[in-house]
Amino acid sequence: MIPVLEIFGPTIQGEGMVVGRKTMFVRTAGCDYRCTWCDSAFTWDGSAKEDIRQLSVEDVWHELKQAGGENFDHVTISGGNPALLRHLGDLIDLLHNNGCQVALETQGSVWQDWFLNIDDLTISPKPPSSGMETDFSKLDDILSKVEEADRTTTHTSLKVVVFDKADFAYAEHVHQRYPQVPFYVQVGNPDPLTDEQTNLVSGLLDDYEALVDRVVASSAMNNVRVLPQLHVLIWGNKRGV
Amino acid sequence: MIPVLEIFGPTIQGEGMVVGRKTMFVRTAGCDYRCTWCDSAFTWDGSAKEDIRQLSVEDVWHELKQAGGENFDHVTISGGNPALLRHLGDLIDLLHNNGCQVALETQGSVWQDWFLNIDDLTISPKPPSSGMETDFSKLDDILSKVEEADRTTTHTSLKVVVFDKADFAYAEHVHQRYPQVPFYVQVGNPDPLTDEQTNLVSGLLDDYEALVDRVVASSAMNNVRVLPQLHVLIWGNKRGV
Ligand code: SF4
Ligand code: SF4
Repeated sequence: MIPVLEIFGPTIQGEGMVVGRKTMFVRTAGCDYRCTWCDSAFTWDGSAKEDIRQLSVEDVWHELKQAGGENFDHVTISGGNPALLRHLGDLIDLLHNNGCQVALETQGSVWQDWFLNIDDLTISPKPPSSGMETDFSKLDDILSKVEEADRTTTHTSLKVVVFDKADFAYAEHVHQRYPQVPFYVQVGNPDPLTDEQTNLVSGLLDDYEALVDRVVASSAMNNVRVLPQLHVLIWGNKRGV
Repeated sequence: MIPVLEIFGPTIQGEGMVVGRKTMFVRTAGCDYRCTWCDSAFTWDGSAKEDIRQLSVEDVWHELKQAGGENFDHVTISGGNPALLRHLGDLIDLLHNNGCQVALETQGSVWQDWFLNIDDLTISPKPPSSGMETDFSKLDDILSKVEEADRTTTHTSLKVVVFDKADFAYAEHVHQRYPQVPFYVQVGNPDPLTDEQTNLVSGLLDDYEALVDRVVASSAMNNVRVLPQLHVLIWGNKRGV
C-alpha cells in the first residue's frame, strides 16, 4: 500500500529536467526532512492527516485513468519524500507496463533500488536556508549507483533551490562535486501560502532575474540551467493543478 | 565570413529544448521567411542593415570571449535563419574545439550538413498564423537525415509556436507526423514591440495557461512539453539580454 495525498492532472511539470512536460501527479505522504520553506508541508506536518489514503498500486492506476483518461503518458511522483516508500517499485512497473514514463523527485537522503527504473529522476539536495544538513556520503553513494548503471547523463539530474547567497555557494559546491550530472538551479517560492497572485508573480520574476545574474557572473556555474517554477507563475499556490 | 547582427551574453536560453541553459548568443542576419509576427524582423527587414558585420569565425570567437570571458561553455546561434549560411560549420567546429556546446534554431526550410554537428538542434516549422507555408517534403528530408545519424532523440527537437486554434491543429499534425522527435509547443509573443512590461507579462501568462489547457485536453498531445519564453517574462522585448 502507498500513502497517497493527491492524484491529479493532466497538467504540466512546472520545474526541473522535464519542465513543461504534460504529466499526471501522484503525491505521497511523509518526509524525513522539515525544510523551513517546504511548499508541501501538508505532506508531513499533520495538517492533511485525514486526507492520506492507503492505496494499492492498482487503485492508484485506476484513479489516474479516471482523472486523465487517454490524455497522458507521463506520471510524476512527488512528496514529501517518495523515496521513503520501499514498495513504490511496483507502481513504477505498473505505469511502465501501461505505456507511461515516470518522473520522481527526492532530496537524496535515502536510496531505493527502483531509482534505476525512473525515467526522469531529480535529486534535490537542500541548501542551508532549508535548515537541513546534507549527508554528502549518502549523496555520493546515490550518484555513484546511478553512474554505475550508466544513467547519469540521460535519466538523472540534480536540482538546487536557491534563496540567498549561502544557498548559491552550496549550489556551486554540489555542481562541482558532481560535474557530470545535469544541473538545475531554481528560485524558491518566497511565500508558499499567499494567495496574492500578482505580487507573487512579480516577486518570483525579480528573484529569477537575480538568480540568472548570479549564474551569469559565476564561472563555476557554466553548464547549468536556471529555471523558475512555471506552475507558480500560472496558478500561484493553488493545489491540485 | 558570417553576417552577424548581435553577439551577447552570457545570459540564459529562454525557450525550447535547453530552456534555462546558460549560453552566449550569436545572431546572424538574413531569413528566407517573412513571418507576420517575427520577433527578430530586424534580421531581415532592412531596419538594422547598418549593424550587419561580415565577421570571420575567429572574429566571432574573439568577441564571444570578450563578452563572456570564462563564464560560458555554450553558444546559441540564432537568426534570422542561420541555416542559410553554408560555412557556419567552421564556426561550429571552432566552438567545439574551444569546449563549447552549440545550439541552433531554424525553421526547417533548408538543410546543411553541419546540422549533424549541432548539440541542440531546434527545428521550428511555422504555423498558419505566420503567413508562411511549410514544405513538408523538405521537413521530411531533414528529419530523416537526422534519424539516419541516430540523433533524433538526443540532439534534436521540434518546436511549434501557437497563437490560435489553427496553429494548434498544425502543431498536432507536426507532432503526429514525427512522433519520435521530442516536441515543444510554445506561446507566441503577442506584441514583440511593446515596452509595457507588466501588461506583456500578464498577457503572456494568460496565453500560456490557455495553451496548457489546450494541450491537457488533447490526447494527440501527450508526449509534449509546453513552454513560455522565459527571457520575455524577465526582460520583455529588450534586445541583447
Ligand atoms: S524535503 Fe521536500 S517535502 Fe521534505 S520538508 Fe523539504 S521541501 Fe518539504
Ligand atoms: S523564420 Fe524566424 S526569423 Fe525568419 S521571419 Fe520567421 S520568425 Fe522571423
